[in-house]
Amino acid sequence: MCSVMSRVNPAQRVVSVALRLRPNAPGSSCAAARRGRLCPGLTSAAEPLRLTSRWFSSRAAVTQGLLFRQLFEAESSTYTYLLADTDTKEAVIIDPVLETIDRDLHLINQLGLNLKVAVNTHCHADHITSTGLMKKRLFGLKSAISKFSGASADIFLSEGDKITFGKHSLTVRETPGHTDGCATLVLGDQSMAFTGDTLLIRGCGRTDFQQGCSKTLYESIHQKIFTLPDECLVYPAHDYLGQTVSTVGEERKFNPRLTKSLEDFVNIMKNLNLPKPAKIDISVPANLVCGLHGL
Amino acid sequence: MCSVMSRVNPAQRVVSVALRLRPNAPGSSCAAARRGRLCPGLTSAAEPLRLTSRWFSSRAAVTQGLLFRQLFEAESSTYTYLLADTDTKEAVIIDPVLETIDRDLHLINQLGLNLKVAVNTHCHADHITSTGLMKKRLFGLKSAISKFSGASADIFLSEGDKITFGKHSLTVRETPGHTDGCATLVLGDQSMAFTGDTLLIRGCGRTDFQQGCSKTLYESIHQKIFTLPDECLVYPAHDYLGQTVSTVGEERKFNPRLTKSLEDFVNIMKNLNLPKPAKIDISVPANLVCGLHGL
Repeated sequence: MCSVMSRVNPAQRVVSVALRLRPNAPGSSCAAARRGRLCPGLTSAAEPLRLTSRWFSSRAAVTQGLLFRQLFEAESSTYTYLLADTDTKEAVIIDPVLETIDRDLHLINQLGLNLKVAVNTHCHADHITSTGLMKKRLFGLKSAISKFSGASADIFLSEGDKITFGKHSLTVRETPGHTDGCATLVLGDQSMAFTGDTLLIRGCGRTDFQQGCSKTLYESIHQKIFTLPDECLVYPAHDYLGQTVSTVGEERKFNPRLTKSLEDFVNIMKNLNLPKPAKIDISVPANLVCGLHGL
Repeated sequence: MCSVMSRVNPAQRVVSVALRLRPNAPGSSCAAARRGRLCPGLTSAAEPLRLTSRWFSSRAAVTQGLLFRQLFEAESSTYTYLLADTDTKEAVIIDPVLETIDRDLHLINQLGLNLKVAVNTHCHADHITSTGLMKKRLFGLKSAISKFSGASADIFLSEGDKITFGKHSLTVRETPGHTDGCATLVLGDQSMAFTGDTLLIRGCGRTDFQQGCSKTLYESIHQKIFTLPDECLVYPAHDYLGQTVSTVGEERKFNPRLTKSLEDFVNIMKNLNLPKPAKIDISVPANLVCGLHGL
């Protein structure tokens, strides 16, 4: 087991064993936290795309015995993901949204799943998470978020942590840049990556608030996501054009921002002139406490 | 080859050979067409659900070498599906929407696909198909729709016809009820079914216009869709709640309308009191001519 286990309380320890997670105490400064999280040995230069037949296939990379559902919340254009082991029925939900909590819990109930962990890829600014309310409704459910998010949770995630459900697992890759506490969750066989707001389909998260840093985002994507297999499916936290999935290979080749040099990318991000998210002033304070602020 | 080949023109015959399709002349009356299209040997009574581990898995049933993309058009809440052979790059698009033609063609172009057929699951009342305009933009593209739809097309589909793209194929199951010309397209290995408006996730198409008949719809679903394997993924033409996929097993067990008796189902459908679709007066005339009406 990991070395930080002695620092966690008994309740956290039980969770960590059950989920094979490493709980961490939050508190490191975000600026300090950035250092050393990008693999120095990896290059940010894109390799030539491997144009094998697998590159084109969004269904070639497959995990047997996995239930997978993509769910959409229309107001904030947010994707929620439900993953479960078909044998043990242990399940994980990624980025659940307050407005769709009844739909999601109804589905979980119909499918007979045992929801173990609700993970947020980061502290969202555009919607309120349903994690806190879901914990009140589902006995034993644990919340999880990056230790660099500044948000409260049962489990604080760090690079390399695994969220295990049955025979499957999601591995945490820290991908700061949109916020300091952004994480990408990669399925054990690297067939799927849940990229949050770090990498969107032909786009990426903005970097003009919440500790955003274009250079950090660029490095995160190139070093932590573009180093996954070309055929790895990219499932983002949002899409605004009706697209549901991409692949690492496609984004490496076609993403109009990430195919640029770092300098050009920084300039693009500097000149997006996006409006302030409508809900940021209520979403961020709420999401810092699992969405329970004011409830 | 099938017996109706001698009745088609040479251009249609070439297409039918290339795509292994059986073109049919339209014109049979819709009422007559209904007869004999539901397999009399199959029971409409739901079998007990096979609660195998595969039942829960939306990724267990997998076709290797298949590219698959689900795309969404928000105004009409329509799903468009793109399927392609990863080796030959031959592709089929199902239910493309006029408003998203540029997105869809851009993706097809980026992926280097050769779009052979644009299929409509029926003559839609809520949106205009992009099929006609797509044919103008993509040389060699053929349109396809049920021979009972009343709409014009290059290829008229009948029960058992196969739309082949590379090593994959979609088999036509006639599923009238929402309209007379509704078809469900089933992937060769029965891992996926594109059900159009016949079967929606926890719902079904309405039956109060365009030759709608609740009894026919109930029989279509029970005899042509619920007889597919439980783990077969159900991809509908619409969803209004952010759901993207279901399975045959789930719908057989949880669909609140289709789990009822025929009599109860007919009563439910009779009392839906739905408003007239906003675009029906422009969509149906347009879709009868591949969406090109007034363009």
